[in-house]
Amino acid sequence: MTEPAPIRGLWCATLTPLGRDGDVDHARLASHVRLLLAKGVDGVVPFGTTGEGPSFSVAERCEALDALLAANVGPDRLLAATGAAAFTDTLALTRHALESGCPRCLILPPFFWKPLTDEALFRYYASLIDAVGDLRLRVYLYHIPQLSGVPIRPETVARLSTAYPGIIAGVKDSGGDFEHTAELLRRAPQLSILVGHEPHLARLMRAGGAGTICGIANLLPELIAALFEPDATADDETRVRTFLDFVLRYPFVPAFKAIRAAQTGDSAWLAPRPPLSPLTEGERAALLAALRSAGFGIAPETDGL
Amino acid sequence: MTEPAPIRGLWCATLTPLGRDGDVDHARLASHVRLLLAKGVDGVVPFGTTGEGPSFSVAERCEALDALLAANVGPDRLLAATGAAAFTDTLALTRHALESGCPRCLILPPFFWKPLTDEALFRYYASLIDAVGDLRLRVYLYHIPQLSGVPIRPETVARLSTAYPGIIAGVKDSGGDFEHTAELLRRAPQLSILVGHEPHLARLMRAGGAGTICGIANLLPELIAALFEPDATADDETRVRTFLDFVLRYPFVPAFKAIRAAQTGDSAWLAPRPPLSPLTEGERAALLAALRSAGFGIAPETDGL
Repeated sequence: MTEPAPIRGLWCATLTPLGRDGDVDHARLASHVRLLLAKGVDGVVPFGTTGEGPSFSVAERCEALDALLAANVGPDRLLAATGAAAFTDTLALTRHALESGCPRCLILPPFFWKPLTDEALFRYYASLIDAVGDLRLRVYLYHIPQLSGVPIRPETVARLSTAYPGIIAGVKDSGGDFEHTAELLRRAPQLSILVGHEPHLARLMRAGGAGTICGIANLLPELIAALFEPDATADDETRVRTFLDFVLRYPFVPAFKAIRAAQTGDSAWLAPRPPLSPLTEGERAALLAALRSAGFGIAPETDGL
Repeated sequence: MTEPAPIRGLWCATLTPLGRDGDVDHARLASHVRLLLAKGVDGVVPFGTTGEGPSFSVAERCEALDALLAANVGPDRLLAATGAAAFTDTLALTRHALESGCPRCLILPPFFWKPLTDEALFRYYASLIDAVGDLRLRVYLYHIPQLSGVPIRPETVARLSTAYPGIIAGVKDSGGDFEHTAELLRRAPQLSILVGHEPHLARLMRAGGAGTICGIANLLPELIAALFEPDATADDETRVRTFLDFVLRYPFVPAFKAIRAAQTGDSAWLAPRPPLSPLTEGERAALLAALRSAGFGIAPETDGL
């Protein structure tokens, strides 16, 4: 294993396709990932929030990572999301990722106990890193308080980075509050700071950030890639905002899946895992019609899903 | 397997003792449970919130249940907490409980996705019951929105009970809002309604409720048992409130564990699993001193922990 490169650029929080039995469809996931990489996405994060990570067991997540590697997706293109509610599950997922050659791990805080003090959160990550006990580990802290219920404050990030230099490698900030992101850049400039909220990407890059791990990259990676160009304009950002505004009228995972189903003509994409539900037929039609009328490239041949 | 009795009376949400390695101490857990049953507790719930359930893996939870059964704790004394963030984990835990002869399961809602609609929550439990596919299953819905982030509304309880009569057997209401509890009694009088918040117990019993699944039963079951007596007074309830007020100055799981350590003289009880931390020595001393000066029976021989 060579020194893993810091996560930079355009990374996709990949959707998780399911088979009719509700299990992860490994072949469809590998095809999706290969297509994304061919389109210029720098790497993928399976089982993040967009990939419904917390809805899958440790075994399901390990098997899917193994299947991606077996399908020749390189470890250099993977950031493994290994956070779970239970310490022992997070430990098992993180160890498995390392043993599989994927030392870069995106790790949620424990998301049942709240409120959690900054001290408790620091100790949780410290205990985890100590228990893994492998200097090759590269931890990307995952701040998404609207779902985890547990914010990771910039002070905690800085404290962890000081205690574990090199091992703490970055932060995925999906809080959607750019003030928090800017504070991360100030307090921990040595880390890869990435945003989940796509409309913040251009601003982040101007401020010295590393890139994005985002959901829209599943659907229209070129829309996000444009924001990295030196000649990116406010119009490019507006375009991303417009797309997101349409999507966020609905629960975003089922909405993303509906769009992917329409793009591919493959209705297998529609189903999320419980507790999430597919959009209704009416919701799906309204979403696709709105996107198309706004000029987004959702393949029209798939209307008859 | 005979028809499982509805959960009624005084049930204990058991603390989970850990060994030095941080793993579940099966022998200490079995001793604790046997002692509780000998003291008149009607049954126990391993791996609820007080038992730090969401902090343990599926394998750890299954092994601990097996160990309790192997230690001759009868299935009629057990309500298995089988909720987890992932659908597949909840399914595995619930199936295992049933296969082990414990058809009564206390099931958290999926606690990562929020907000979750009532419809999505209904479908989650329905999908789970359908997937288990065993008419012997008895589901106790676990309402604890302050930690799960997902309330289970009385309407959803009633709808589930209508869709799965007999299988939906009760609700543990740990929300601490008696109006919610009263609405459950009105909407689903056929179910066992149990409270987690001990000071509401006498009021619940007067209103036709079934009992409690509570944490204080780990420490002073007689304090709670008194509330079931026909001659229970407002003083008995005040006593419970006073005890709880002292405990809730601290995170309640480490506080309960500190008290249990003091009662038994066994410092192994002190440690919770990350992300929870033990009370500091100063916090522990202050808590025990306060309880003792208020006349609660915390064995004095254990001061020197």
